[in-house]
Amino acid sequence: MDNQLQSWIEALCSGDVRSLARAISLVENRGQGAYELLKAVFPHSGKARVIGLTGPPGAGKSTLVDQLAHHYRRAQRTVGIVAVDPTSPYTGGAILGDRIRMQSHHADPGIYIRSMATRGALGGLAHTTADVATVMDASGRDVILIETVGVGQDEVDIVRLADVTIVILVPGMGDDVQTIKAGIMEIADIFVINKSDREGAERVEREILSMQSLASSSRKNGADAWTPPIVKTVASEGKGIAELGAAIEKYEAYLAQDNRLLAKTTHNWETRLTEMLRDAVLERVVRARLGDGELARCAAEVAEHKQDPYSLVEKMVSAYVKA
Amino acid sequence: MDNQLQSWIEALCSGDVRSLARAISLVENRGQGAYELLKAVFPHSGKARVIGLTGPPGAGKSTLVDQLAHHYRRAQRTVGIVAVDPTSPYTGGAILGDRIRMQSHHADPGIYIRSMATRGALGGLAHTTADVATVMDASGRDVILIETVGVGQDEVDIVRLADVTIVILVPGMGDDVQTIKAGIMEIADIFVINKSDREGAERVEREILSMQSLASSSRKNGADAWTPPIVKTVASEGKGIAELGAAIEKYEAYLAQDNRLLAKTTHNWETRLTEMLRDAVLERVVRARLGDGELARCAAEVAEHKQDPYSLVEKMVSAYVKA
Repeated sequence: MDNQLQSWIEALCSGDVRSLARAISLVENRGQGAYELLKAVFPHSGKARVIGLTGPPGAGKSTLVDQLAHHYRRAQRTVGIVAVDPTSPYTGGAILGDRIRMQSHHADPGIYIRSMATRGALGGLAHTTADVATVMDASGRDVILIETVGVGQDEVDIVRLADVTIVILVPGMGDDVQTIKAGIMEIADIFVINKSDREGAERVEREILSMQSLASSSRKNGADAWTPPIVKTVASEGKGIAELGAAIEKYEAYLAQDNRLLAKTTHNWETRLTEMLRDAVLERVVRARLGDGELARCAAEVAEHKQDPYSLVEKMVSAYVKA
Repeated sequence: MDNQLQSWIEALCSGDVRSLARAISLVENRGQGAYELLKAVFPHSGKARVIGLTGPPGAGKSTLVDQLAHHYRRAQRTVGIVAVDPTSPYTGGAILGDRIRMQSHHADPGIYIRSMATRGALGGLAHTTADVATVMDASGRDVILIETVGVGQDEVDIVRLADVTIVILVPGMGDDVQTIKAGIMEIADIFVINKSDREGAERVEREILSMQSLASSSRKNGADAWTPPIVKTVASEGKGIAELGAAIEKYEAYLAQDNRLLAKTTHNWETRLTEMLRDAVLERVVRARLGDGELARCAAEVAEHKQDPYSLVEKMVSAYVKA
């Protein structure tokens, strides 16, 4: 490791915010030296509590995350926030709201917020988000909050890699609420019903409870299985945040028993390694082998039905991957 | 090709619904012989018009898709519907609504509906959905409607591979509407404002128009560039469906000029081949090299911080991919 990288990492691990910002940018853009940095930073990570929060559009996630950040600040814990937006390769995602949020935290260096707006063609968003969380972790943040709009699988993949996964629902979500819940039901360690002063909060609660009773009767749950609690909040008024903090603490205590945290982390790494491997292999193959318009030429042949894509991909795999 | 496969494909291509259902199941589950089938089926595909529809939860997509299907049926065209749900590896997605929909179309063999509820650990959902559409195409369906809940990148990836991409918005979507629109703005060939009898429809329209004027001033648009029209519908009452059909036809006429359809299809295949290659390489590497718990062992070492994941993945790639 060269001296420059060494001093960068020292500054980063001592909590220097500018070094952190620079490191995240490098990792997010997969710039030159990104992997060198990640390798050097990894041994310093693993101390933070990573909390993933997801929910449908309009659930008030940003407000809830901000409130939770202040909750941890009151307990003297430093916080990093990774806000993942559904992104656009052209517009770079919605940035305006993020700027406003950054300003509101500006006075407190104990809260560092970073928006993930880019998604490379080759690197998966979940993979990049996890790496950014690792860098924040190494910089000494006590709690890392990862926030996504959770309807797509990609977003679900992101938060499920956290130590604690919180699914945020809201009354009156329309006809697709069943679908959403079916998709995220089993990733939740804790449910939040936000905007719970609105009509319909009880209905959402009943629906979660009935799905839980269905799930527990179909599974062989041990006596010590965790049943995700339901916390009602009105984040815009700060209501229910202390209760949410307590629910998280209770789940942390559960994880601390019987090696559960290590088992969960190992399982998460299995998923994450698979994704890293996929991205790395693809990058190697696509960059090295399919440059100079070869991919475009192949695509044109398939589009004109001169070649079938399945045989083409088979041939490529045999050519590129060791038997 | 063996005789059994041959006669299966003949039945499939002649429009036999049971052969189609069986083929889709095989492709969706990536069962043994799936790729043999796809290779044999591909030359028969390429005739259908593939229309992708996406929008946030609660936008009334299913109803709109059903209405559009009936619109095409009135013109004597056969329809295939692929409904992609945000999925759960455990519950298999929300199936109830789908059953109800299937029943409503049951009397008409000209509409075939299939829900994509599974997502394999290794195969991408966009990849599988595209393959299912190819099978429907080969079976002689004139129009294929692919419907997803479009907030995640995964869902956006699915519909952007269609010939025609329709983005469905709805009045009163809450605070995340900006974010959603930023993510899907540039994939839309046509915008639909559904439930347009509700308050706020004009506001949604104004927002789309203002984003379009921003986009067109920042891009160097040729005089012949396509500006996505905005169609207002009340799908539950069948209002605006004929207008939507007309807008689709107009876009088809646009695509038919200057080789635009081939250019678009080629571009789509570039994306799709990359994803197929990624999945195939990963499958080869993970299945062949990381079986017998090796992945789990590596994950445990990383979880215990005995090894950094970045160096580990680098080593794996060098070991598995030809230089």
